[in-house]
Amino acid sequence: MAASENPLVSDRLVDFLLYDVLDVEALAALPDFEGHGRDTFDPWLATCRRLGRQVLYPAYRAMDAEPPRLANGRVQVHPKMHALWKELAAAGVIAASRPLDVGGQSLPLTVATFANAYLMAGNLSAYGFAGLTTGAAHLLEAFGSDVVRETYMRPMYEGRYSGTMALTEPQAGSSLADVTSGATPTNAADGHYLLRGSKIFISGGDQDITENIVHLVLARIDGAPAGTKGISLFAVPRLRATSESTSDTKTFTPNDVHVTGLIHKIGWRGLPSLALSFGDAGDCHGFLVGEPHQGLRFMFQMMNEARIMVGVNAAATASVAFHESLAYAKDRKQGRAVSGGDASRPQVPLVQHADVRRMLLRQKSIVEGALCLLGVAARYSDIAEHGTNTDEKKRAKLLLDLITPLAKTFPAEKGFESNTLALQIHGGYGYSSEYLPESWLRDQKLNTIHEGTTGIQSMDLLGRKVVAGGGAALLALAEEIRKDLAKAEGAGVEATRTKPVSDALDRMLALTQHLGGRGMAGDAEGMLAHAVDYLDAMSVLVVAWMWTKMSAAAGGRSDDFAL
Amino acid sequence: MAASENPLVSDRLVDFLLYDVLDVEALAALPDFEGHGRDTFDPWLATCRRLGRQVLYPAYRAMDAEPPRLANGRVQVHPKMHALWKELAAAGVIAASRPLDVGGQSLPLTVATFANAYLMAGNLSAYGFAGLTTGAAHLLEAFGSDVVRETYMRPMYEGRYSGTMALTEPQAGSSLADVTSGATPTNAADGHYLLRGSKIFISGGDQDITENIVHLVLARIDGAPAGTKGISLFAVPRLRATSESTSDTKTFTPNDVHVTGLIHKIGWRGLPSLALSFGDAGDCHGFLVGEPHQGLRFMFQMMNEARIMVGVNAAATASVAFHESLAYAKDRKQGRAVSGGDASRPQVPLVQHADVRRMLLRQKSIVEGALCLLGVAARYSDIAEHGTNTDEKKRAKLLLDLITPLAKTFPAEKGFESNTLALQIHGGYGYSSEYLPESWLRDQKLNTIHEGTTGIQSMDLLGRKVVAGGGAALLALAEEIRKDLAKAEGAGVEATRTKPVSDALDRMLALTQHLGGRGMAGDAEGMLAHAVDYLDAMSVLVVAWMWTKMSAAAGGRSDDFAL
Repeated sequence: MAASENPLVSDRLVDFLLYDVLDVEALAALPDFEGHGRDTFDPWLATCRRLGRQVLYPAYRAMDAEPPRLANGRVQVHPKMHALWKELAAAGVIAASRPLDVGGQSLPLTVATFANAYLMAGNLSAYGFAGLTTGAAHLLEAFGSDVVRETYMRPMYEGRYSGTMALTEPQAGSSLADVTSGATPTNAADGHYLLRGSKIFISGGDQDITENIVHLVLARIDGAPAGTKGISLFAVPRLRATSESTSDTKTFTPNDVHVTGLIHKIGWRGLPSLALSFGDAGDCHGFLVGEPHQGLRFMFQMMNEARIMVGVNAAATASVAFHESLAYAKDRKQGRAVSGGDASRPQVPLVQHADVRRMLLRQKSIVEGALCLLGVAARYSDIAEHGTNTDEKKRAKLLLDLITPLAKTFPAEKGFESNTLALQIHGGYGYSSEYLPESWLRDQKLNTIHEGTTGIQSMDLLGRKVVAGGGAALLALAEEIRKDLAKAEGAGVEATRTKPVSDALDRMLALTQHLGGRGMAGDAEGMLAHAVDYLDAMSVLVVAWMWTKMSAAAGGRSDDFAL
Repeated sequence: MAASENPLVSDRLVDFLLYDVLDVEALAALPDFEGHGRDTFDPWLATCRRLGRQVLYPAYRAMDAEPPRLANGRVQVHPKMHALWKELAAAGVIAASRPLDVGGQSLPLTVATFANAYLMAGNLSAYGFAGLTTGAAHLLEAFGSDVVRETYMRPMYEGRYSGTMALTEPQAGSSLADVTSGATPTNAADGHYLLRGSKIFISGGDQDITENIVHLVLARIDGAPAGTKGISLFAVPRLRATSESTSDTKTFTPNDVHVTGLIHKIGWRGLPSLALSFGDAGDCHGFLVGEPHQGLRFMFQMMNEARIMVGVNAAATASVAFHESLAYAKDRKQGRAVSGGDASRPQVPLVQHADVRRMLLRQKSIVEGALCLLGVAARYSDIAEHGTNTDEKKRAKLLLDLITPLAKTFPAEKGFESNTLALQIHGGYGYSSEYLPESWLRDQKLNTIHEGTTGIQSMDLLGRKVVAGGGAALLALAEEIRKDLAKAEGAGVEATRTKPVSDALDRMLALTQHLGGRGMAGDAEGMLAHAVDYLDAMSVLVVAWMWTKMSAAAGGRSDDFAL
């Protein structure tokens, strides 16, 4: 299949999810989305479909083959990336879901999520620069001072600057409680702190495509308490505005942030991952974002968004590979079906073999189930942020928090399985770097690691989310699932399809009680040893719920969704 | 962990499997293994442990990083490979399990299998050249003419020549019925045929380490029937002996075999995979091996050995990664266990986290279960080939045939899961090419594809092996499992460990009847759509049986086998 022919994500599926399953037109009735409707959503989808297919995807293979280089302490990204960034910025991708007053389009996240899926499926590294910038700018928008917002956030949304998250330190890894980067207050008029420390695995931590880069850095103010309660959040630009700057004219000077290493990643090879050091010369200015010691709470706004974004990435990466293997299976002739006669008959396309169909259908169930789940998560996020009914907002937030670890992990873990099947369908050719499935498989693996590993997501789910508030979130989820099961039955979906979901729900509730009881009896270790298996089972239930939703919306039309 | 410290495979496990579980000393009582015993087995294991750890493994990373190159139509392997080959050949690795009269050591395959596991775990590509040569030479030993055996087989076992299997063609892939390579008889005194055709994915199909390469090629003699019943097997040397050759002095001339392409594989990067063309100039001599049209039957001798070899490779590749991640988890400190207190306490090694232990134990259960299964398969092979009791030989062959697809596929598929966990334990570092788990993950993926994909193994199991002879093989397997369950109970293994295996056996027997019934009712497609899931379930049962065997042999000592 020629590169340009891969649809990346199915338009028909996305339209069905947005308008039939998720009813995004109802969202447009909320005041924050005034002026929006299908007549604004569709053009935005068309823009991103075009960008994904015609701009980003054609550069994917080259960017995978030639990762960024380090030269004289600076990172040079792939030459093609410069033009891609210009197109992404010009189209308004970075601020699409942000309000009009910061230069955005106020699009519901639900719409932006599916639009972004095309960009991620086309070239996840290229989109990565933009997605990280959106997340970092959103943090400044929410918690930054007016000066920081004006000086740094605005050019980020415009695409003149980029943003990063700088959390991880070499000695601490996933354990943020052990962050040791420090921040010393000064008496300067601009209120800056002097930052010092080392960070690792900073995606987009340096590049040569934007004028400036703003790092969102976790560090401890001198004398802060140990553990997670002593961590503050700082905006640390690569170039900082000097005191000579005015609101009209700004001048900038280097801010003592240095690249100390480039990670040789096995995937996402267009997006550099770096080791950075802050304040080697004692002259790294950082601007406190929000109150002192509250950094982790603020960062989690970004982290939760980032986790959903990882889920979308994972689903998109599985989607593009699914479509590649589907096209290959329809095109490549090999052997005959068991009942298809002897070798005197012509060979048949792979898709006619029962086991190849099994592999394609398994991919389809993972990819489309995951995309639906991410749509549901984005919709909860839209309601939680923009809803007008307090109870609805609370419930949406409760459900969003519960499903966030699932919406991150199901696409990442099951997406890896799906990507493996796409490679397998290509046989010996799939094992060659002449074909793309192997590169998507490499890309996919990061999604079980970054923004909280699968183990961490699982502890978040079992150790926190399902037990919090006396299990309120899980009960709300059960209500939602039962509501959709009833709806599906009303739409004529057979009991052979709804009963197993209903049974699985009962089993998960019982399992939760059992494991929760073990935890409450003091055996937290014994409970958490099962956390990943618990998340796995719960995520399959939740995706079965998604297929219930889709079945209900499709009514009698389920045949339309065959391979 | 420094390269030299990885044990590759646990010595203690291998000794336990060989002497306690598989009782290889009893094999030494068979006439064909005369003179053998623990006093000859242990030195051979020591030789291969040393070769694996001190010779092959130190070259692994370099060979992964710089794959073979094509220059002037010939392949140049990694420079380090030349010395490795000399050591492997000098030690007698190629012919170790072959009889004394062809230059071998008559070692039981059971012993050779575990010895080879160290070589494969150390550097699967380097061992690959040797393993392919053993398999090809064994075919000539069994079915070749005296002249072919003398001219080609003998120098192969000596390591002066290498061997390959040339089955796959670009237009046919896994469908051997569609092989179109041709062979025209001649009236020449040496009885050669003129070969023509194209083959693809030929591992070791060219290299610059041996004097000569002998390809075992599937082709159709002119006028042969269509399908698999018209395929013959030929020995096609890269350099052929001329008619001037005498038994003392041989002269050689190029044989019209050409490299047409080098595959850019994602793993096994030390072993080149090639596209070859035979007879472009009409001058490619091939020597019939065995009778005409029986080639597939002969080739399957090699294929069945090769499938077991793939299983060992897969288990070895999972093993080396397991040991790497185990050492990393014991060394790397990060965070605290849930009950381990706050951030004022020092960080603990990863292995103290419940979920990391889960990942390590899952790897251990896959790796050690797979190695035990391969030992059992090798032992059946030894009995089938060298046994003295006809009934025992028949039963061993029956069981070997049944478990071959499982012994190939469980290590390949579950080994991929195991290798994925080894990467995951390394976190962000695991996603970097500075660490080895990612390269073993790439290596592992080939094992679900070559020598018959997982889909093909599954059809072999469900469509052939379990239904053949009225299900005789499956009934024999059930007897063996029940015998070992009784033995385990007698050795004091708790019913909580044996009952689930016994229940799973009953379920698998019922499932086999159900699916077999579907096939017999004419719905072969419906049956085979479940073939991979069936193999998956059956392989888990069979590995549970392995753990039953190990538990029985370990008796009360199971605590010794903790992480």
